[in-house]
Amino acid sequence: MAAVSITAAILVIGDEILSGRTKDKNIGYIAEYLTNIGIELREVRVVPDVEAEIVGAINALRTRFTYVFTTGGIGPTHDDITADCVAKAFGVSIDHDPRAIAMMLERYTKEDLNEARLRMARIPAGAELIENPISKAPGFMLDNVIVMAGVPNIMQAMLDNVSARLATGAKMLVATIDTGGLPEGIYAAGLGAVAAAHPGVSIGSYPSFHAGGFRNQIVLRTKDAALLEAATLAVETLVATLKADKAAI
Amino acid sequence: MAAVSITAAILVIGDEILSGRTKDKNIGYIAEYLTNIGIELREVRVVPDVEAEIVGAINALRTRFTYVFTTGGIGPTHDDITADCVAKAFGVSIDHDPRAIAMMLERYTKEDLNEARLRMARIPAGAELIENPISKAPGFMLDNVIVMAGVPNIMQAMLDNVSARLATGAKMLVATIDTGGLPEGIYAAGLGAVAAAHPGVSIGSYPSFHAGGFRNQIVLRTKDAALLEAATLAVETLVATLKADKAAI
Repeated sequence: MAAVSITAAILVIGDEILSGRTKDKNIGYIAEYLTNIGIELREVRVVPDVEAEIVGAINALRTRFTYVFTTGGIGPTHDDITADCVAKAFGVSIDHDPRAIAMMLERYTKEDLNEARLRMARIPAGAELIENPISKAPGFMLDNVIVMAGVPNIMQAMLDNVSARLATGAKMLVATIDTGGLPEGIYAAGLGAVAAAHPGVSIGSYPSFHAGGFRNQIVLRTKDAALLEAATLAVETLVATLKADKAAI
Repeated sequence: MAAVSITAAILVIGDEILSGRTKDKNIGYIAEYLTNIGIELREVRVVPDVEAEIVGAINALRTRFTYVFTTGGIGPTHDDITADCVAKAFGVSIDHDPRAIAMMLERYTKEDLNEARLRMARIPAGAELIENPISKAPGFMLDNVIVMAGVPNIMQAMLDNVSARLATGAKMLVATIDTGGLPEGIYAAGLGAVAAAHPGVSIGSYPSFHAGGFRNQIVLRTKDAALLEAATLAVETLVATLKADKAAI
């Protein structure tokens, strides 16, 4: 039985990420979160605060993936143009949303809700709001595009609030095998053969560099438990055999 | 005098980033590095280890920007397909490169340089090599595409080695003003007016959340020192005036 794949892309909006001034903390968080709820992240883009770039990226991604998650650009200042860009991408109007204003009045008095702050209540027509328990100005979901804040703790709260509304697929099952000092160049040929013999399993090899030298991990990913078990056994046998060969020399 | 803009995109290649298993450390590093040498990072993409996705992204980005920096997918295992994808994107052949093999023989004996490891010496025709002082298998630069390892310390060494070959533009000048507790919603209207009056300066407002609440910073960016000085003075005057207003209430 082939499981239905629910897919996603992330669109990070912000000059400050591209300049390197701010180091993104949202991509890794959302990636892990989606994997855990059975949504496959397939692409990430980071674009500047430029209308044509944002609109183009939204339209390129929303037609290819089940969901698009955006972060950044929904504050009260002139450089916050994400909501307008989403409206433009969908060809819908955008205006102050009474539901969003009501949420913001939980934090601000009527006098404090000035024109700049009211910008944060501008929501494209047809969107559902996403609650923001921290600073109240909501995110929103329009069709398959989920618009969230860029500040990590607000983004995380919005992701929690929207996740129950999302379709999810079978969860990816993962096995990780540490090669215990066996280098990639020694197991690469055998691993390629194992991968070719187990087409239903995605097999990757990931070196990382530590004080003691390289460490290699082989990661197997599939939604099918039986396939995972068979492929894991094959990789473990390969690694054990190569280690025994090495020890015998 | 309008400064020439040298632009760039980063293409991160790797299932492990999209699954959230590995948290990318290269985007922020390269972004800051390029800013410091006068190259403007304009877009980032992360794509999976899938040929069509990688080739498509390389071709989309290399025609739009001065340089494209890729990370990941140049190891010895079956999932390392970046070099082949670059060759395919440019329509050139790819084969074992004697210069790359010579570099690798500094680390490996001839017997240890097996078929898998020789995969790392496969370089598209016409490419210039980028030295790898750590594990010897080189990166390469083909036309405007710079192909680097995904392991951060190797990528960083490759970036150091290739940077002298790159054209660079005028460095971006940056000024940062901390609003000292003044919230975005209070200065947004005034800041929008300052931004509109200083079109040669990119002005952003960046909230971050700390234990003590929100902290806001206004960042001004331009390549023109006189424009930066004038816009910075305008923002400082705005912030000081709004603080005085607040104190007077």
